[in-house]
Amino acid sequence: QATSVDRSSHSMDKSITLPPDEIFRNLENAKRFAIDIGGSLTKLAYYSTVQHKVAKVRSFDHTAKVGGETEGDPLYEISMQEEVSARLHFIKFENAYIETCLDFIKDHLVNTDTKVIKATGGGAHKFKDLIEKKLKLRVDKEDEMTCLIKGCNFVLRNITHEAFVYAKHADSEFRFQNTHPDIFPYLLINIGSGVSIFKVESEDTFERVGGSSIGGGTFWGLGALLTKTKRFDELLQLASKGQHTNVDMLVKDIYGGSYGSLGLTGDLIASSFGKSATPDKEFSKEDMAKSLLHMISNDIGQLACLYARLHNLTRVYFGGFFIRGHPVTMHTITYSINFFTKANFVRIFFLMGSSFFCLIHCYFFLLYLDPNQYSWGENYAGSSGLMSTSPDLNPMQRARSGTFDMLEMDRLERQLVNLPLLQDPSSYIPDTVDLSEDALAREYWLYCFEEALDGVVKRAVASQPDLPEAAERAEKFRHKYQHKLQTLRHQPL
Amino acid sequence: QATSVDRSSHSMDKSITLPPDEIFRNLENAKRFAIDIGGSLTKLAYYSTVQHKVAKVRSFDHTAKVGGETEGDPLYEISMQEEVSARLHFIKFENAYIETCLDFIKDHLVNTDTKVIKATGGGAHKFKDLIEKKLKLRVDKEDEMTCLIKGCNFVLRNITHEAFVYAKHADSEFRFQNTHPDIFPYLLINIGSGVSIFKVESEDTFERVGGSSIGGGTFWGLGALLTKTKRFDELLQLASKGQHTNVDMLVKDIYGGSYGSLGLTGDLIASSFGKSATPDKEFSKEDMAKSLLHMISNDIGQLACLYARLHNLTRVYFGGFFIRGHPVTMHTITYSINFFTKANFVRIFFLMGSSFFCLIHCYFFLLYLDPNQYSWGENYAGSSGLMSTSPDLNPMQRARSGTFDMLEMDRLERQLVNLPLLQDPSSYIPDTVDLSEDALAREYWLYCFEEALDGVVKRAVASQPDLPEAAERAEKFRHKYQHKLQTLRHQPL
Repeated sequence: QATSVDRSSHSMDKSITLPPDEIFRNLENAKRFAIDIGGSLTKLAYYSTVQHKVAKVRSFDHTAKVGGETEGDPLYEISMQEEVSARLHFIKFENAYIETCLDFIKDHLVNTDTKVIKATGGGAHKFKDLIEKKLKLRVDKEDEMTCLIKGCNFVLRNITHEAFVYAKHADSEFRFQNTHPDIFPYLLINIGSGVSIFKVESEDTFERVGGSSIGGGTFWGLGALLTKTKRFDELLQLASKGQHTNVDMLVKDIYGGSYGSLGLTGDLIASSFGKSATPDKEFSKEDMAKSLLHMISNDIGQLACLYARLHNLTRVYFGGFFIRGHPVTMHTITYSINFFTKANFVRIFFLMGSSFFCLIHCYFFLLYLDPNQYSWGENYAGSSGLMSTSPDLNPMQRARSGTFDMLEMDRLERQLVNLPLLQDPSSYIPDTVDLSEDALAREYWLYCFEEALDGVVKRAVASQPDLPEAAERAEKFRHKYQHKLQTLRHQPL
Repeated sequence: QATSVDRSSHSMDKSITLPPDEIFRNLENAKRFAIDIGGSLTKLAYYSTVQHKVAKVRSFDHTAKVGGETEGDPLYEISMQEEVSARLHFIKFENAYIETCLDFIKDHLVNTDTKVIKATGGGAHKFKDLIEKKLKLRVDKEDEMTCLIKGCNFVLRNITHEAFVYAKHADSEFRFQNTHPDIFPYLLINIGSGVSIFKVESEDTFERVGGSSIGGGTFWGLGALLTKTKRFDELLQLASKGQHTNVDMLVKDIYGGSYGSLGLTGDLIASSFGKSATPDKEFSKEDMAKSLLHMISNDIGQLACLYARLHNLTRVYFGGFFIRGHPVTMHTITYSINFFTKANFVRIFFLMGSSFFCLIHCYFFLLYLDPNQYSWGENYAGSSGLMSTSPDLNPMQRARSGTFDMLEMDRLERQLVNLPLLQDPSSYIPDTVDLSEDALAREYWLYCFEEALDGVVKRAVASQPDLPEAAERAEKFRHKYQHKLQTLRHQPL
C-alpha cells in the first residue's frame, strides 16, 4: 500500500504546479509547523508574522477658530505606521500532494529555528520518515482524538458563525449559532474517510461511542470506481447535477405509491442503487454520484440520530471533510435526521472549519499556549471558506480550491472581552443587523460598496504617486473586491 | 421504469427454459395461488394434493406354532395403499422471470376452480394487471407487514430449526434454536431490497421502528455496476472469493497498527472502499464484491444493534433474501453485532425460510385456515433450503437454484401434540441425539445409510417386477440419495 501511494504521488509531481503566492502565503518567515494526516487529506498549519502598514488618522479641532472653515487647513492628518501581527495559516490538500508540498516548503523557507513538527492523524505514523527527511524537523505525535475534541471546543467557543443549521429552500439557507460558553454536552459526528461519533460531556470528558466505515472515503472510492472520476470535488460536482431516482428504488417503484400505514412516502428511497441491477441499462455518472451521496448521507444521518437518542443528547454537530459546507450533503443529512426523529428532539449543526479541528488544537499545543488566552478571528480574505464547496458559483476558483483549501486566523491585538459596563454579560443580546438574514439590508450595503468601489480605487492609486505598480495593484484589488461582493450576494454567509 | 422491466423480462423469455418437473412439481392439480412480489424477487405459493402409495406392514405371530419356524410361512405381509396428502409449494425467483412463470403455470394447469389469487408485497400493485390477464384470477391484496410478522411468528413456533445462531470456525457452524411457544418480544430485521426493522411484542402488536435503504438491492445494484455481474448469486459467489482488504482502508492503513486508546484493532475497516480512489490501480471483481458485502452487512448489523438497545430487546432475528443462510453475510453481521454490543447483551438469530414469511401468512389466510390448526413439516426432498446458499459445495445444483429456490411443506396426517402422559410439557426436554452437533454419531449414521443404499436399490427394483422403468427410476433414486448424504456430511443441518 505504501508503495502505491508513493508511486501515485510521484506521478502527481509532474502534473501539478502549486500556486505559491496564494496557497503558501507568508511562507518565507513561517515558524512552527503542525500537520494532520488523515486517510485521504493532509492538513498543514504554520505560524507567521505579517508586517503591514496601518493608517492612523488624527483629526484637527477647528471649532475654536472664529470665522468658520479656513480653505487651506486640513481637516485630518494621516500617518502610516508599520505593524506586525501574528497569523495562522491552515492548508488542506489531498494526500497525493504531500511530497510536492513538503518539497515546496523546504525550498521556500528562508529561516526557521523550529526543530519540531507536531503531527496528528493516522498518517503521522505512515509519513513520519518522509516529513523528517524533507523538512529536517523531528516529528512529535499528538493523540488525534484529544486534538479533535479540544479543537472543536475551541472553535465552538471562539469562532462566531462556526456552527450553523442548514435549511434548503428557506429564506436564508444558513442559520448560524452564535458562540456560547455553555457548549456541553454534545454529540460530534466527524466524517473523514470513515465516520467517528463522539460524546463530549466537558472539556476533558469525551468518549468515542460509535463509528461507521461508510464515510467520505466511501463516497470518494466507490464514486471513483463508478464514474472514473478520481477527484473528490469533481464527484461532488457530478452529484449536484444528478437525479438519484434513476438509480435508486423508491417506495413508489415497489408499491406504486406511498405505503401509508407504515408512514412511508412514495419518494422515500427503499433501496439505494436498487434499480441498477436492471439488465442492459446504462446509468449516468451524475445519477450514480447523487445516489451514492444520498446513500452515505442518509446512513450517517440515521446513525447520528440513533446515537443521540441512545445517549440522550440534543445537540449534534457534524464536521469533517465530507461536510465542509456542501449543500447537497447537508440537505440530505438534515432531511435524514428530521425523518428519523419525528419528535424534532435533535438539533443539528454543521461546522464550517471542522476539517482543521485536529490541527488547531495541535497547533496551540505546539505553541505552549492556552488557546483561550488570545482572541482570534478568521481572516476572510485568506480563507477559501464555504466558497470551495459550491461548485456552480465559482468554476474558476473551484479549480484551485478543489485541490487546496485554506483557513487563516489572525490573532487580534487585544483580547476580546465583554464591555465592563454590562450588568450581566451572559444575558446580553447585542442589537445587531445580521446581513445573512436581512435580505433588504444586505442588498443596500452591497450596493453601497459596489458604488464606492471606483472612488476607492482612484484614491488608492492617487495615494501612492511614486509607485509605478500602484495602478496595476489597484486593478487587482478592484477585481478581487468585486468578486467578493458578487459571492456575498449569492452566499450571504 | 415499468417499461424497462417489461422489456427486460421479454428478453429473458427467449433465453430461459424452466425445469418444470423440479420447479413446478404437482402443478397439474394445483389449487389456490398466493404471490408475494418484492422489489427484486417474486415468491409464489400453491396448494396441491399428492397421491402416493404407502406400504402397510402386517406381521404374523408365529409364537403359537409348535416346532419353531416353518420354511414357507411369511413373517409379514405388505399391502399397498393409496394415500392423498396436502402439500404447499413455495417457489422464489427473480422478478425478471415473472411473466415466463405465469405463462408456464397457465399452460400446465389441468384444472382449478380457484377464482382468486392472494397477493402481497409492493409488486402486487405493479403486476396486478399482468397476473389477472395471464392467470385469469382476481388479485386480492393483503397487507405486507401483517403477512410478514404473522408468517414469522408461525414459522418461529412451528418449524423446528428455523432459527439458528451462526458461528464461523466453531465445531458446528450452526446452532439451532428449538421452537418455543414463548417467542415475544423480538426485533425482526427483514433484509429485502431495502431493510425494514420491526419490533414485535405479541401476535397482534408490532411496529416498524426503523429501516435503511442499504440492503440486498444495494448489494445487487452496486455489485452489478462494479463487476458487470447481474446475477445476485453470482455476486455472492464472487464475494466469497474476494479479499476486502485490497479495497477497504483499514485502521492499520491509517494508523500503521491498532488505535489502542479507542479500542480499534488494526484490521477494523476504517473506510469501506477507502483505497479505491487510488489513481491508476485496478481492483478485482471478487475484492470489490467482498468489500461491498462487508459494508452492507456491517451497516445492517450496527443498525440492528442500535435499535435493539433503544427498544431494550435482546432477541434479534435476521431474515429476508439477503440472508438466506449465506455464510459470509451471516458471519459479518454476527461479527458486527458482537463488535457493537461489547456487553453481549443481544442474541442474534438467522431465519432459514424467511424469504417466504410473507407468503406463508398470506397463504393460510387464503385457505381460511387457522395456521395453528394443523401441523406442518418441511419436505426436505423438495426444498432447496440452505443448499442454494453455499456456492462451493454444489456447483451443479447452484446453476438451477441460483435462479429458483423452493420450499415445500407437508401437512402432517395428524396434528403433533405433546405426549398426554407428560406432567409439564413446557419443561420437558426430550433426550434426543442432535446429529448436527454430535459429529461421531453423525458419521456413524451416514455410514450406515451409505452401506445400505445398494441393498435398498436392489429391493426397490425387485419389488416392481412388472414395471420396465423401475431400474432407471431406482438409479435416479440412488444418485439423489447419495448426493443428499454427501451434502449432509458437509452441511449437517
